[in-house]
Amino acid sequence: MNTLKDRAADIKAAAQTLDKEVYNYAGKDKVTTPRREFQSRSPKLCSLEEAIRRSGLKDGMTISFHHHFRGGDKVVNMVVGKLAEMGYKDLQLAASSLSDVHAPLIEHIRNGVITGISTSGLRGELANEISRGLMEKPVVFRSHGGRGSAIASGDLHIDVAFLGASSSDPLGNACGYSRSENAKSICGSLGYALPDAQYADKVVILTDDLVPYPNVPNSISEDQVDFVVEVDSVGDSSKISSGAIRDSKNPRDILLAQLAAKVIINSGYFKDGFSIQTGTGGASLAAVKYIRNEMIERGIKASYALGGITAHMVKMHQEGLIDRLIDVQSFDKVAAESLKNDMTHKEVSACEYASADEPGSAVHYLDIVILSALEADVNFNVNVLVGSDGIIRGAIGGHPDTAADSALSIIVCPLLRGRIPCVVDEVTTLITPGSTVDVIVTEYGIAVNPRRPELADSLREAGLKVVDIRSLKEKAKSIIGEPDSLPFGDKTVGIVMNRDGSVQDVIKNIEA
Amino acid sequence: MNTLKDRAADIKAAAQTLDKEVYNYAGKDKVTTPRREFQSRSPKLCSLEEAIRRSGLKDGMTISFHHHFRGGDKVVNMVVGKLAEMGYKDLQLAASSLSDVHAPLIEHIRNGVITGISTSGLRGELANEISRGLMEKPVVFRSHGGRGSAIASGDLHIDVAFLGASSSDPLGNACGYSRSENAKSICGSLGYALPDAQYADKVVILTDDLVPYPNVPNSISEDQVDFVVEVDSVGDSSKISSGAIRDSKNPRDILLAQLAAKVIINSGYFKDGFSIQTGTGGASLAAVKYIRNEMIERGIKASYALGGITAHMVKMHQEGLIDRLIDVQSFDKVAAESLKNDMTHKEVSACEYASADEPGSAVHYLDIVILSALEADVNFNVNVLVGSDGIIRGAIGGHPDTAADSALSIIVCPLLRGRIPCVVDEVTTLITPGSTVDVIVTEYGIAVNPRRPELADSLREAGLKVVDIRSLKEKAKSIIGEPDSLPFGDKTVGIVMNRDGSVQDVIKNIEA
Repeated sequence: MNTLKDRAADIKAAAQTLDKEVYNYAGKDKVTTPRREFQSRSPKLCSLEEAIRRSGLKDGMTISFHHHFRGGDKVVNMVVGKLAEMGYKDLQLAASSLSDVHAPLIEHIRNGVITGISTSGLRGELANEISRGLMEKPVVFRSHGGRGSAIASGDLHIDVAFLGASSSDPLGNACGYSRSENAKSICGSLGYALPDAQYADKVVILTDDLVPYPNVPNSISEDQVDFVVEVDSVGDSSKISSGAIRDSKNPRDILLAQLAAKVIINSGYFKDGFSIQTGTGGASLAAVKYIRNEMIERGIKASYALGGITAHMVKMHQEGLIDRLIDVQSFDKVAAESLKNDMTHKEVSACEYASADEPGSAVHYLDIVILSALEADVNFNVNVLVGSDGIIRGAIGGHPDTAADSALSIIVCPLLRGRIPCVVDEVTTLITPGSTVDVIVTEYGIAVNPRRPELADSLREAGLKVVDIRSLKEKAKSIIGEPDSLPFGDKTVGIVMNRDGSVQDVIKNIEA
Repeated sequence: MNTLKDRAADIKAAAQTLDKEVYNYAGKDKVTTPRREFQSRSPKLCSLEEAIRRSGLKDGMTISFHHHFRGGDKVVNMVVGKLAEMGYKDLQLAASSLSDVHAPLIEHIRNGVITGISTSGLRGELANEISRGLMEKPVVFRSHGGRGSAIASGDLHIDVAFLGASSSDPLGNACGYSRSENAKSICGSLGYALPDAQYADKVVILTDDLVPYPNVPNSISEDQVDFVVEVDSVGDSSKISSGAIRDSKNPRDILLAQLAAKVIINSGYFKDGFSIQTGTGGASLAAVKYIRNEMIERGIKASYALGGITAHMVKMHQEGLIDRLIDVQSFDKVAAESLKNDMTHKEVSACEYASADEPGSAVHYLDIVILSALEADVNFNVNVLVGSDGIIRGAIGGHPDTAADSALSIIVCPLLRGRIPCVVDEVTTLITPGSTVDVIVTEYGIAVNPRRPELADSLREAGLKVVDIRSLKEKAKSIIGEPDSLPFGDKTVGIVMNRDGSVQDVIKNIEA
């Protein structure tokens, strides 16, 4: 009575109510192979070419990459090289950033393999060629937070993400470090790759250390990964602290860092529980060293340090001066190792770091950020992307995100770089709007945004040399004269997006 | 020349090409309040009633809950009580499981506040009433992996998730433990809440320890959270090891555990690098203790232990006998503390744990699982949900998920419980299909599924008493006779879903 057979009609009726099938017993044989043997036959494990084919990638689609290996990245050139070999055309490359190692892309652009680029920055020969009009379609530049938002909102749709990882198991549990004896690389946080892993239609992990399941802890989970490809090398870890994030020994940078530290200490925000981020650039990175003594003396501790995490911050964290590290990108190997080994050193995605759409993103709770600049102007606008020669030579990074959302944004910037004035009438390209910039520190004086009179008063009271931003511009002009205007052409080679998804500026081709 | 003003037309043209607005400078004033002060005014922080109102919850919608506090849960009753007070009707309650503390739901069902339930299990007075026909709409039962899949696929759409957390910051970075001095509760893994956090339209975190930003490490990220509500208590942690997961001192359970350990050791799967899960039930949980000595003697280490993690497993992990712990639910406080403090003790979502749709979910790489049963039948089918009296008194849990995907599934089950036979002709309700069950261990002998003749040979060679499943059923019948058939009525009170999303069985109302 009331056997499964008796219930067959009721089961069918229940299935109809729910608009479901009735369970079918056929073909439910178990796979009884011991799992350690089964593992080497993971359905996700394949060659790069096979992963590309199985991903369904087609001409015209968007592929994405992260830049956590910075100048040491090997994934972009490897994958685009393979795509070219396979005959792909018209691909849209959405990188979190690109640098001078990506010069081989020039050839792929000429050959029509890549016809669109979006990125945070460009450097080197690729930047040079693009500035001169290499591409038909302008490059779209976004901040790190802006890219995260654009991916999350669907504004930047990624068809296939190719993400380098320092370790992965055959199922795709992956991260920017490895606990195995065969570890070849380390980049630490994969923060800029996490939105891609979450939102791309297909995700390919490339790794140079395929470890046994389960790779624990990990930052990208198998449930976001479609294919795992073993390669010789995903990147040269010795270069993760290359370029804009090298520790500076330049005396002027040290002076600027010390001045920035004094601004912080006397700003009113230097209180127990404050939070801080330092951007790229030697002076910006070094400033944190100079507030350390004052923290010890006054018994002040920071609640967290954010952003690109450096060895200085790790040291202060280990000393108990900084309670938590929130790491979207590890700026050196010490930081990467700390992320690997310390539970209170947290990895965050670009969205958790700096999305404007997300009221809980970390930048919203940031007290102080110290940033660099290629140029600042009399309206406190900042340019970190295009050189004073009109050639692209930098990256937006988190600059506008942190300036806008921090309580106090400090720009450190020499007045002159050789024969180039860094405080000007108007920035060549507008990256960070002046309404979000509070203080500009130069070796000739400190300018405070007129929107912050209370801040100017505090700094003056502390004996700092507070000057009018226009007097800095005049000083620069008096030393090196009025620079010639730049020979820009009519072609738009770059579009600068604001972090809110609107268009903020364009970059024209340079003709000289 | 080439000022921002000169570029205005180009900027507008670029915006049109991308179908975007031009950046608007108006209203971009910075919030310059120090962040530690700003934090207490997090836009997400509000009362439960306000969170409900702001969530947009409407009559007829689906609300969800997790059961990580098991018998100690305080969130379901608190929230549904508030919803009743606010006048809501016709809500659909999607819990990861429900237990005897949820008896107050009976009144809310009678009053039309709750008209639909989906869950892994039901116990106590609520289960009793539902078994007798309390609800118009049948309760939908899913396995843990099945629920994860259903949420991920959209089959189970959650409008508002109400998730208890042992700590959260004002932005919603939350977890099942706390590092603050004010910690009130601990439940460890929030694995069954993670799909809700990821896929629900709105997510409300309830916490009894509101900690300063940033709550690091955490398992639910602020970017998934809409509201944070501070409450007196989310759960009584002393009850997380209540009910089906208490450590047994019953001599028969110990005998069964020892027999299960012998089956494992002689199964052919007891090799270096094996993986193991133990389900609920005293004998199942205890079995792992008895393989420990053999692991030490033979120098065998496990690659990971999965599932409900217990103090036994934590101990073996700390001894180096189990390399990693993969934790979807912490079965006791020791496990919860270990999750909090040990980076190699990993928290996974229900999807990462046991989704059938996900080739990389952990069950796919599981060698051995030991599970309990209310009843098993001569076709190796197992019932863990409905008692032999026809009343619901259990939970599907991960039973069918792990049985199907492990290489070796072992059911430990006494032949008799008092006057109730546990090996029968046909299970009252089909939860785990016999095709996925390999071995049934009773105190009267060990039955091996005829699909696994090689396994029966191995166990016989090891001197274990391998018997025909039919002889076990006959033995039970010879001791206590043929049980009366159950007085089921015509009303369908429960629908049992297979983990693949199809309908597998129905539960009829009981009339006695």
